[in-house]
This record gives sequence, C-alpha cells and structure tokens, in this order.
Amino acid sequence: MSGKLYVVGLGPGEARFLTPEAGAALEAAEALYGYVPYLARVPERAGQQRFASDNREELARAGAALSHAAGGSRVAMVSGGDPGVFAMAAAVIEAIEAGPAEWRALEVEIVPGITAMLAVAARTGAPLGHDFCAISLSDNLKPFEVVERRLRLAAQAGFAMAFYNPVSKARPWQLDRAFEVLREELPGSVPVIFGRAVGRADERLRVLALTHARGHMADMATCIIVGSVETRLVERPGLPSLVYTPRSAGPR
Amino acid sequence: MSGKLYVVGLGPGEARFLTPEAGAALEAAEALYGYVPYLARVPERAGQQRFASDNREELARAGAALSHAAGGSRVAMVSGGDPGVFAMAAAVIEAIEAGPAEWRALEVEIVPGITAMLAVAARTGAPLGHDFCAISLSDNLKPFEVVERRLRLAAQAGFAMAFYNPVSKARPWQLDRAFEVLREELPGSVPVIFGRAVGRADERLRVLALTHARGHMADMATCIIVGSVETRLVERPGLPSLVYTPRSAGPR
Repeated sequence: MSGKLYVVGLGPGEARFLTPEAGAALEAAEALYGYVPYLARVPERAGQQRFASDNREELARAGAALSHAAGGSRVAMVSGGDPGVFAMAAAVIEAIEAGPAEWRALEVEIVPGITAMLAVAARTGAPLGHDFCAISLSDNLKPFEVVERRLRLAAQAGFAMAFYNPVSKARPWQLDRAFEVLREELPGSVPVIFGRAVGRADERLRVLALTHARGHMADMATCIIVGSVETRLVERPGLPSLVYTPRSAGPR
Repeated sequence: MSGKLYVVGLGPGEARFLTPEAGAALEAAEALYGYVPYLARVPERAGQQRFASDNREELARAGAALSHAAGGSRVAMVSGGDPGVFAMAAAVIEAIEAGPAEWRALEVEIVPGITAMLAVAARTGAPLGHDFCAISLSDNLKPFEVVERRLRLAAQAGFAMAFYNPVSKARPWQLDRAFEVLREELPGSVPVIFGRAVGRADERLRVLALTHARGHMADMATCIIVGSVETRLVERPGLPSLVYTPRSAGPR
C-alpha cells in the first residue's frame, strides 16, 4: 500500500471551526505529527500514534512525517489555522523538494482551515473587507529590512494588513519598529486590532489608533490587523464598535 | 425579543468545508438571505424563510436582512467563502452605518469560512506560503488605475497575489490588463494558478507561466493566484507539480 500525507488546518481554536473535511482526514490518519499545542487540540484515539514536536523544528517534523508516510502509512501533519498561511504546508513541500525521490511519489493532501486573520476580522467587523495583505514579522528566515520595505509598499498601496508572528522572546523589538514605520506612512488615526487567542476561551480583542499601538500589547498568540486609510469604526450604543474597510476603498 | 443577524461563510463549495459554527448559525436562523447560488447550497428546512437575490444587489440585500432582524427575528445572511473577504460582511456594516439607529442596536455575528484563495492554494501546494496580498480586480467600486497601482506595488513588495472578481460580462478586459502590468514588473516565468469552482464537482485547476496567462482562461467562478519571484514548482512523476512559495522568500 502506498502512503499518504495529509496537512490539516485545525482553524483558530475550538472544534466549532474544524471543517468536516479536516475531521475526516484526522479520522483517516494512522499517525499524527505536529507542534505540541496543536496536537493537544485533537482528541486521542486508540491505535492512532502521536508525535509532538517543538515550534522551531518545522523541517525536521516535516521530514519525519514524510518518512513515516513513505513507509506506507496514512499520516496527518496538524497545523493551527490554515496550513498554507505561515504554517506547515510550505515546510512540507520544502522538505519534499530537498528529500529523497520516494517522497515525490507520495500522495499529499492539504486540507484548508480558517486562518487567524479571518477569525480576528470576523470578531471585529470587516477590516479586511477590501484589498489587503498578510505579512509575517518574523526575521528568522528573512532580514527585517525586507519586512520594513514591504510594510511601506503595502501602506502606499492602500492595503489593510494582517501581521502573523508579531513577536517572540527572540524578537522583542520588531513589532514596535513595524508600527514606527507605518506611522511614517499612514495617519495615526488608522485603526489597529490586536486579536489574541481568537476562537478560544481566553480570547482578547483590543482596537486602538495606530498612534497608540505598541509592541507590548501583543504576544505569540496574537494576530494583528492594521487598517488602511479607508478603514473606519461604526459606533454602537452598548455594543463594541464595528471596524470595517468599505468595498469602495480607493487610493490613499 | 431582540433580533440578531448572522453573516455566515459557507466556504468554497461542498458541505465538507462548512464549519460546525456556520452550520449552527444556519440552524438557528428563522430566515435566510443571500445570492441565489449560495442560498441553493443550504438544504431547505420547514419553517425557515428564504429570500434569494441577484448578485449586484448587496446593499439592498443587507438592508432587507437588517430590517427583518430588527423586527425581532434571527436572520442569517449567507455568503460564499468567507464573508469578510470581498463578500457580504462589509456590505452589511456599510448598511448599518447608513441605516436607521435601531440597526446599530442589533446583535451581529460574523461567522468566518474558508475563502477561495485558501482552497485554491491548498489544492496546488502552498503558493501563499509566505507574504501575500488579496486584490479585487473589479472596478465597479474603484477606478482601475487604483488596481494597476496596487498590482505594481504588490509586485515590487515581493507579495504573492490572489485575485478575486477577475472578470465578468461587464468587465471583459481588466484581467488581461492586470497580467500585462505584472509582466512589466515580474519575470515571465512566475507561476500563475487558475482555480475554477474549487471544492465543487466541476473543479478545474490550471498552472502556467505569467508569460502565457490570458484573461479568457478565467470566468466569474475563478480565483487566480500569481506567485512571487520566489514561487516555484516541485515536479513529481505521475502527479501534478506542487506550487509553493518558500518560507524564507526575500525581496525581488
């Protein structure tokens, strides 16, 4: 029997975001691989093996899962959110490209999920309601000058922006620098959303103006959305304001 | 009893993409509103009213659903893909902003879904595996010069790109013009993916180089992904090539 690797998006947190397609892939798999907290979200099942690994070991984890599948098993790599957005799908394909020929013969099925920025957007209104971009602020794999240049061009283009990987212990200053760069390009009144652990019990949302946005307001579980100059708030008595970018959003 | 409006993302097609949260919202609703083909995806239920409308009537549809909910009912506006990405969430909030004060008192719950670009990306590899943007090519609500400017800045920033609303009967030339603009900014070898009706029985995928990309290859049901200069193909014997953007993707 030939093996198969699923790369499965769990969505942002609780089971109410897990698609039936993702559930079926987890059910079909004889073994699960993944970063510890993502694996912990999948209920244990008798006879299904589990291989948890640390956050910074994507390529090694991908290789282990591919080797396992190449032995003839159905294996699932679990990923938070959507596996194709700053998650495991690219790492798996990088590993296939660099790995033994037999990995290219494996069936690979990538199962999409709700990515963090869509969950944060839905909880606050429609801040990504017009043209937008998604940027990883991590400079583990690219120089931060590239991030700065992208931020400036994105602001000039009039995109709303979602930031993934905004901070970590090893990257304490990058988010503050990103806000500084954007304050040079955009009015200070542009809304910024900090969405922490959205879709989970400890969810926390905060909306404030770019002028007041600071790096310490985020942690590793935070996805940040920065509006465009067109993004605005609709105030509601007794309810949180809705943040949205109109469908007609034009140039700055 | 006070009313409530759900804005529900159905995902890209079949029920296997519908999250349990979206299913629960459709179950709770006493009335459904939506564009004809999206409503047709939701099984009929005794006692649940249905109000189907044409594609170009987003604001009128939003107003009708808000009025209905303001009468004290639980109403769901259904949307293909994710309601926050070039879909109904922004139209609903625009209507709230412009509408009577009582609409601001309504509970509004936006339920995210798998948006088209994530489904297309998953079917082909990980073309959105690094920084990317999403652009509507429609010039119904913004001049096409804005689109052209965004395309150039996005290419200069090194973003992969997803195009929504690439063509329609009223917009026959815009997609060809978009490819022309990108050929001035990017190498002709950059991969372009046409994903039509992804997640449905009549799904069709096509991957070719930017040099060869033409407007007639898309229709209204197509989502297009244009890679960055870093995006590449991993060839596989007897299987479709995997298209992916490495996690380390730097500047052009």
